[in-house]
Amino acid sequence: MPSPKKPSKPTASLTTLRERLGELDDLTQAASLAGWDEQTYMPPGGAAGRGEVLATLGRLAHARLTDPGLATLLDGLQQTPDLQETDARIVAAVDRDADRARRVPDRLVGDIARHTAAAQVAWHEARAADDFGPFQAALAHHVELRQELAGCFPEAAHPYDALLHAFEPDLTTERVQTVFAQLRDGLVPLIQEIAARPAPPTLPGPFPVDRQRDLALEIARAQGFEDEHWRLDLAVHPFAQSLGLADIRVTARYDERTLTGLFAVMHEVGHGLYERQTDPALARTTVGTGVSLGIHESQSRLWENLVGRSEAFWTHWHPRLLEAFGARALGGDDLPAFLRAINTVRPSPIRVEADEATYSLHVILRFELEVALMEGTLAVADLPAAWNAKTKELLGLDVASDKVGVLQDIHWAYGELGYFPTYAIGNIVAAQLWTVIRRELPTLDEDLARGDTTALREWLREHVHRHGRLFTPSELLMNITGSELDAQPFLDQLRAKYGALYGLG
Amino acid sequence: MPSPKKPSKPTASLTTLRERLGELDDLTQAASLAGWDEQTYMPPGGAAGRGEVLATLGRLAHARLTDPGLATLLDGLQQTPDLQETDARIVAAVDRDADRARRVPDRLVGDIARHTAAAQVAWHEARAADDFGPFQAALAHHVELRQELAGCFPEAAHPYDALLHAFEPDLTTERVQTVFAQLRDGLVPLIQEIAARPAPPTLPGPFPVDRQRDLALEIARAQGFEDEHWRLDLAVHPFAQSLGLADIRVTARYDERTLTGLFAVMHEVGHGLYERQTDPALARTTVGTGVSLGIHESQSRLWENLVGRSEAFWTHWHPRLLEAFGARALGGDDLPAFLRAINTVRPSPIRVEADEATYSLHVILRFELEVALMEGTLAVADLPAAWNAKTKELLGLDVASDKVGVLQDIHWAYGELGYFPTYAIGNIVAAQLWTVIRRELPTLDEDLARGDTTALREWLREHVHRHGRLFTPSELLMNITGSELDAQPFLDQLRAKYGALYGLG
Repeated sequence: MPSPKKPSKPTASLTTLRERLGELDDLTQAASLAGWDEQTYMPPGGAAGRGEVLATLGRLAHARLTDPGLATLLDGLQQTPDLQETDARIVAAVDRDADRARRVPDRLVGDIARHTAAAQVAWHEARAADDFGPFQAALAHHVELRQELAGCFPEAAHPYDALLHAFEPDLTTERVQTVFAQLRDGLVPLIQEIAARPAPPTLPGPFPVDRQRDLALEIARAQGFEDEHWRLDLAVHPFAQSLGLADIRVTARYDERTLTGLFAVMHEVGHGLYERQTDPALARTTVGTGVSLGIHESQSRLWENLVGRSEAFWTHWHPRLLEAFGARALGGDDLPAFLRAINTVRPSPIRVEADEATYSLHVILRFELEVALMEGTLAVADLPAAWNAKTKELLGLDVASDKVGVLQDIHWAYGELGYFPTYAIGNIVAAQLWTVIRRELPTLDEDLARGDTTALREWLREHVHRHGRLFTPSELLMNITGSELDAQPFLDQLRAKYGALYGLG
Repeated sequence: MPSPKKPSKPTASLTTLRERLGELDDLTQAASLAGWDEQTYMPPGGAAGRGEVLATLGRLAHARLTDPGLATLLDGLQQTPDLQETDARIVAAVDRDADRARRVPDRLVGDIARHTAAAQVAWHEARAADDFGPFQAALAHHVELRQELAGCFPEAAHPYDALLHAFEPDLTTERVQTVFAQLRDGLVPLIQEIAARPAPPTLPGPFPVDRQRDLALEIARAQGFEDEHWRLDLAVHPFAQSLGLADIRVTARYDERTLTGLFAVMHEVGHGLYERQTDPALARTTVGTGVSLGIHESQSRLWENLVGRSEAFWTHWHPRLLEAFGARALGGDDLPAFLRAINTVRPSPIRVEADEATYSLHVILRFELEVALMEGTLAVADLPAAWNAKTKELLGLDVASDKVGVLQDIHWAYGELGYFPTYAIGNIVAAQLWTVIRRELPTLDEDLARGDTTALREWLREHVHRHGRLFTPSELLMNITGSELDAQPFLDQLRAKYGALYGLG
């Protein structure tokens, strides 16, 4: 970790770099606001104009990042011998971004953007028909375009690496394959053991939406949501968006039949805290944000699952829940029964409905198919059959139709191959961090049982959040845990938790 | 008016111009969204970062407008003989914008921006102390900077012209002086006559805020607010903001003691309709927006006062009002009494509390002082005394202290000299248009009494809104009314209305 030193002498080059990065960061923030607004308050008629605005902001940001003047500036700074460590890391991170942006020709960026619009239409058509057919050609062209993109990075060991690196800058396909094999070998038997036990009763409900909203805000505040710097709004698909580190926006959706919305808010606040607790010195450098989607997802999953589904957390919050909804809606006032209900494990064919344990199998399924598509060992025409076979193999389930199978996620309509792995990486990293946290914060359970998250939040600030993108994801993980990406802690924690809840051997 | 002709041949230059203007318009829209968000949903902690984003967007837009490549393109197009009229007018409007932007050096733009931040601090300090003293030096420097700005336009007949032209592109100080003299000579005796009569009783209230919100939305929809393209949100100071012509946002504030909030919504929807009804062919040209603040204000005042305080309008809406708030809150169920209450005329020292008749006198007061400051015939140190003297002269009132006198508006803290006249111009133009409208729509009162605004809205679209900035404000007014700016219709309409309401001779 960078030790506190005197700041660099503000050389003219550094000042110029900061100005350029400030402008780039401002353009990104303007686009982030436009994206947030699009999903929260924009009237539907504004969509076409909003698309133009986002395209222009993206084009201007891209032009700044690929500007030869920036490259010259970065080269010069990299050869400056006495650059302060933080500055050197900023220069290195921006240099990686710029290199990646320059390597992909504008023509290909444009082709991808145009095809993405067309492919979404095809995906929606296929969904409506519950038939992969209308989407097949569009996805095949997406795969071709991604293969062309991979060709821009000929030094990569695997063509999938180039896709992965858009989200996980220093992870290789080979490493993900190794870790996901470990994960799969641990998860499949665990889930089979659990499935042999009777499922706990579900919570009867109902949970009136306005009370869920009030409670979600109370819990969010307990996590660290400050009214001065945060917003909580409604959106069809919950998400978190930072507009710089002083303006954090999370969104939620509530359904009176379940408490899913509460867990989604804990999840999004976890994302938000990562952005909010970045070192303010990194503001307007483009480096003051989460380092990768996997590390980001580790923060959301940590709060949603490791805190939010724990006995310690609900020791404090369960009485408040009873007060809000009554014992009848909660199936009684028994905390252990409530904990079993919110930790039910049951395979489902739908990823977004999956529980903490089965979720990663959905990711492994998609990752393996994506890799095969990129390698050319799987034809797009054969994808539905491959999907169904893998669902049987990993989850033991038959797929009723394409709509609840290969067409269930919109990601591929956007051409976003390489994205899915980050969800499971989030689970894995959260567990690796949790092992260290439990060691370093021995009174964590007592804190949570009192409703106090301060020590946990400060630990995350110190070890993860404040660094922004100064370290690569692997460096960050190694610095904190002394290990590279490793699924064992996640598997151990799941077995310990579900072993107790389900009385496994 | 441009007659429908074949579209121009899409010459390469025109295509390039459209691309450049599209980008400029997108940047303006991104800034408009950032401004809207700042006043509606942004958490307070986001303010500093938002300032940076707005500064960057403004700088990028300014650079595009003053780019020599744009100037060359515009010059070439102006010499193209067979340019279609609409294209020629777009070229002319953008050329005027670019000329104005190029004439003011970046250094002066920066000085003004920096001083504006400092001057606001001084203004707030002065307000808190209820003493002009702490603001005096800041305002004096604003005046110096504006005199320097005026010096960038040496061809102008009067130094105030350069300020006025930022809001009213083709109006001269001399013309405003003539029209305001006419206005003043008509208003002062009228108001004195009314003040000699007993004031009608005010509405007792209360008017619960949630019912006001529902009713405001109903009325807005009757004006033309479409859920697909509009939003109605809360803001401390109500305003309207278009994000392109397909996404219109109006804001409101309600106070349960009065119905002011309802009239403010009608006002803002009037602004919004102007933007919404612009010809879609002008989208992303920078010309598809209101032509001047005065013409814009004519649209809001027309809906707020000429429609919204009329007997015809309330013939339809008064029963709904009774249903929402009850006769007791409305001081009875008598429509004539209600009309008298919402058309009360009484001089007040505060502009934002002024009624339809006295409002323009507040504007004349500020305009005369601004002109004197710019001419150098009034020293800033003497401004409070001059303010108080003019308040006595125009409104017959004594000013209790600076806070309710010279410090009441924030405009001068922003250095916005030249802005105030547009409010009174709005009243004047609305009345000029109304004269034509009443002639051309003989059944308007019957329409409004049925709650039908279609014919009025379509008339405004056809004659005012669709043209955007294709004509200058004076051209537009001359095309519609056959007259230049003229206060007589406004004075005649006020005398007719208040004559009847107050039983004047």
